[in-house]
Amino acid sequence: MTVVLGANRYGKAETRVVRVTRDGDTHHIKDCNVSVALSGDLAATHLTGDNSAVLPTDSQKNTVYAFAREHGVGQIEDFALLLARHFTASQPAVRHARVAIEEYSWERQGPHSFSRAAAEVRTCVVHHDKDGSTSVVSGLRDLVLLNTTGSEFHGFAEDRYTTLPPATDRVLATAVTAGWRHHPSAAGSRDYGKSYEQVRRCLIEAFAGTHSLSLQQTLYAMGSRVLTTREEICEVRLALPNKHHFLVDLTPFGLDNDNEVYFAADRPYGLIEGTVRHDDAPDPGPAWD
Amino acid sequence: MTVVLGANRYGKAETRVVRVTRDGDTHHIKDCNVSVALSGDLAATHLTGDNSAVLPTDSQKNTVYAFAREHGVGQIEDFALLLARHFTASQPAVRHARVAIEEYSWERQGPHSFSRAAAEVRTCVVHHDKDGSTSVVSGLRDLVLLNTTGSEFHGFAEDRYTTLPPATDRVLATAVTAGWRHHPSAAGSRDYGKSYEQVRRCLIEAFAGTHSLSLQQTLYAMGSRVLTTREEICEVRLALPNKHHFLVDLTPFGLDNDNEVYFAADRPYGLIEGTVRHDDAPDPGPAWD
Amino acid sequence: MTVVLGANRYGKAETRVVRVTRDGDTHHIKDCNVSVALSGDLAATHLTGDNSAVLPTDSQKNTVYAFAREHGVGQIEDFALLLARHFTASQPAVRHARVAIEEYSWERQGPHSFSRAAAEVRTCVVHHDKDGSTSVVSGLRDLVLLNTTGSEFHGFAEDRYTTLPPATDRVLATAVTAGWRHHPSAAGSRDYGKSYEQVRRCLIEAFAGTHSLSLQQTLYAMGSRVLTTREEICEVRLALPNKHHFLVDLTPFGLDNDNEVYFAADRPYGLIEGTVRHDDAPDPGPAWD
Amino acid sequence: MTVVLGANRYGKAETRVVRVTRDGDTHHIKDCNVSVALSGDLAATHLTGDNSAVLPTDSQKNTVYAFAREHGVGQIEDFALLLARHFTASQPAVRHARVAIEEYSWERQGPHSFSRAAAEVRTCVVHHDKDGSTSVVSGLRDLVLLNTTGSEFHGFAEDRYTTLPPATDRVLATAVTAGWRHHPSAAGSRDYGKSYEQVRRCLIEAFAGTHSLSLQQTLYAMGSRVLTTREEICEVRLALPNKHHFLVDLTPFGLDNDNEVYFAADRPYGLIEGTVRHDDAPDPGPAWD
Repeated sequence: MTVVLGANRYGKAETRVVRVTRDGDTHHIKDCNVSVALSGDLAATHLTGDNSAVLPTDSQKNTVYAFAREHGVGQIEDFALLLARHFTASQPAVRHARVAIEEYSWERQGPHSFSRAAAEVRTCVVHHDKDGSTSVVSGLRDLVLLNTTGSEFHGFAEDRYTTLPPATDRVLATAVTAGWRHHPSAAGSRDYGKSYEQVRRCLIEAFAGTHSLSLQQTLYAMGSRVLTTREEICEVRLALPNKHHFLVDLTPFGLDNDNEVYFAADRPYGLIEGTVRHDDAPDPGPAWD
Repeated sequence: MTVVLGANRYGKAETRVVRVTRDGDTHHIKDCNVSVALSGDLAATHLTGDNSAVLPTDSQKNTVYAFAREHGVGQIEDFALLLARHFTASQPAVRHARVAIEEYSWERQGPHSFSRAAAEVRTCVVHHDKDGSTSVVSGLRDLVLLNTTGSEFHGFAEDRYTTLPPATDRVLATAVTAGWRHHPSAAGSRDYGKSYEQVRRCLIEAFAGTHSLSLQQTLYAMGSRVLTTREEICEVRLALPNKHHFLVDLTPFGLDNDNEVYFAADRPYGLIEGTVRHDDAPDPGPAWD
Repeated sequence: MTVVLGANRYGKAETRVVRVTRDGDTHHIKDCNVSVALSGDLAATHLTGDNSAVLPTDSQKNTVYAFAREHGVGQIEDFALLLARHFTASQPAVRHARVAIEEYSWERQGPHSFSRAAAEVRTCVVHHDKDGSTSVVSGLRDLVLLNTTGSEFHGFAEDRYTTLPPATDRVLATAVTAGWRHHPSAAGSRDYGKSYEQVRRCLIEAFAGTHSLSLQQTLYAMGSRVLTTREEICEVRLALPNKHHFLVDLTPFGLDNDNEVYFAADRPYGLIEGTVRHDDAPDPGPAWD
Repeated sequence: MTVVLGANRYGKAETRVVRVTRDGDTHHIKDCNVSVALSGDLAATHLTGDNSAVLPTDSQKNTVYAFAREHGVGQIEDFALLLARHFTASQPAVRHARVAIEEYSWERQGPHSFSRAAAEVRTCVVHHDKDGSTSVVSGLRDLVLLNTTGSEFHGFAEDRYTTLPPATDRVLATAVTAGWRHHPSAAGSRDYGKSYEQVRRCLIEAFAGTHSLSLQQTLYAMGSRVLTTREEICEVRLALPNKHHFLVDLTPFGLDNDNEVYFAADRPYGLIEGTVRHDDAPDPGPAWD
């Protein structure tokens, strides 16, 4: 029996950078959380503690700040690509870089005043390899959506543990975590900001506009709406918790409850995960890692 | 030495209620978290386990749901008052009720579709006593505000542990927790929704519009803006964490940093707490408990 | 109508300090989170931004670190007293200091190796006023306790919203938040570490050893056990969430459930809060703020 | 361009089950959080909302509770295997089941009284496929470890963004997330409880006992210690955040700081991830999903 080192990576996670730019008296703000992970020929540090191939995570953090100063942040996908290419190009031992960025949005309240907008977070994960291959997955998390009607669930399989009654009108609520992979042919040459706004719009409109017989059907509608609307996207992955809203039984108090009063439960929750893609989407490689 | 029972209360905390109302095809939603605490003659249950004066917290939860059905939720202050008066009026042993409600806001995405709006939470705390006295404190939390300029901090006291350089232009950021007490003469007879919107607007405008020499000065400006604008409010309490944004030193990389790139720190943080009130504000009693 | 400044305070919150001391090859560790709040004559900074009375929160943070180096941390109550007395003695404008410390415990795994022990956190809040008055409240939070039997709840008040059946054998679970006030005559001259261990032991033993007819009865038993065992304590305050464990109805599957299978619910929860004290406990002043 | 459904799964997440068993007056408790995810022929529900292949997540939850009653919980790996085999065997449309369980540990305080032990959580992820293939990954998270000495970091790569000085004596702290894969030949036929205790012991001892030149070296030592000690394990994956403890510069206050006073930072943090395995470890298949 021999013990060997398998896949590994390292980097600085959650570097919080806020970048201010000025347009006369009007200021603009980008507020991000940057996580870098590098991989390559790192056997020595694992086996003997020889760190000659290890760029300190502290240097990675410094790079994030220096690049924010020199290049601005702009669209997070562009900033992630810039960083990922830098690390693979400048460090001989780095074969592959993964850069993930979260962006928090702010609403303008004055020329240099802002309030934090929705809890929703914009995300991206970029991979870049020394061999030139690149992937870009844009996304979001904590987009909480709810329909008060237009959702049913019946005709399901039953076994001896099934007690759920069929529902013909229920609340459907979820907190969307979504990633969408950009077609590699175009990665790096597009308007990621505009793309983000439109994909987000597709997700919300498909959720709101789908008369749903199952959350899976809604998931598929959301993914396919993105793919048929935005040709630069070749694959969408969605994780949709079914945030149960249970109708409260008010009959002990002589009251009916015609879909008016709900208990919003924390746990457990259904969890629906799925992929929708172009049939000819290229192999994702490490895009979703 | 004799051991005695001191102040005490009990109740159901964090009952999550979602109330849907319909205006034809257009649905409306109220999403709340209700916490009830009752006090009164409760010595027996503490001393001997005699529960004859104890209305179960489960019944309190049921009451929240039944009242949401019968009366709707409306403005959270009104719903809290309704509940507080019910418990003190209907339960002989209950001398005093405290009802606290959090409300989560939703943005319309269709006739019966919604997305969760800002992370910000609207709050209220209502006290009602069997003797008839009532207090209403409205509020909010997690309203995150940031100015990219217009903030200074200098001329401060110094001791042997002081190393902070004076600042003439810094980022000022905070997450507002605020409560504002309604003048008791008017409690229960006003438009709490309109009042909330206007107080919130005052807080944001005073934060954005104050050239700040200290976060304390900003706090006072926020509180006094409310008091001079909204005559129904007699006292404002604010807790403002100073969410430090440190300018990153980029000189080791041959770069200047003219208030462009910041590190947003988690901890430690300054914490500024203060009260602004009318000089003739009536005694708050338990309003702020 | 005149707007005036009411109660206020400011300081550095959540300074995370880890102090290592060495006894030959054997190291010891203290891991704390220190929050300082100062009050006094602070009208100028609020009204005009004149900061001459404001010791920067940054200096307060530096003081925490410097004192940890010079004096060690020791028992958190002693360290808090040291800091509180320093700020009131050295700063003319500071009339009153509040120092709150949380301590995280570690278990030894080798001469200089440790693993984080329970999630439970030891706490203290110290107040010291320039006039010489001092209060010390020791405490803990997140001490999670559970009895699988020996708990009943029946004979309670009922109203039209009561559906809860009486229980003669239920699970009782809580996450204790407790504070206990030291008799002021002795503050500062005692072994807070030994006191803490014994009070904590009293709380656990009273919870485990009380056949409970209500969580209130258990609360009182816990508080009075402390007061009758530890004469240096004059008042105990407890907040006990009733973390409901609901017996799952398995009859649809042809199974009984004789107190074997429970659903541990998140929300809502009962919340029982109470004070137990010596009848001649001195006035607490600001001790519990 | 054609849109197609890719990989998908669904299930009930975070079913909280507490199981009590009695040995005379002495009670035992198992406290778990169970997440089930099923996959198979689920195209219909996604494409048309035909749910005939969908076993409701509510039924999955019921199954967890009923199995806890009928079979007890025992070791979480055994309980997960039982559930996974049940779903694949009983549901024609289910091709594959993933069952993940978290277990919270309790410390005895009496015959039927318990206190929650460390924040640390024991975990497992089991996959079972209708074709008979099975994988078992045991693990833990939130095991926080710290060495006050015996850690160095120097000889690293440098670039123009490197400012970190070499360290010959630093604090090394991490919160271990670990998974270890059981050799498939033995899955289901072993004492998972004993295995867990011994693997956990290996991880702690290797962390404490390794003089570390990099956190990567420590990671490898931890993984290889498990593999050389426990022959039933064929692969270990570790994620080790480098929870930075920065030595505070006290020279402005005329004080040295010979590795005595540290600031425990929250973010950013290094993140070291790696796999250590037997060179002939069988293909993991979906084990790590």
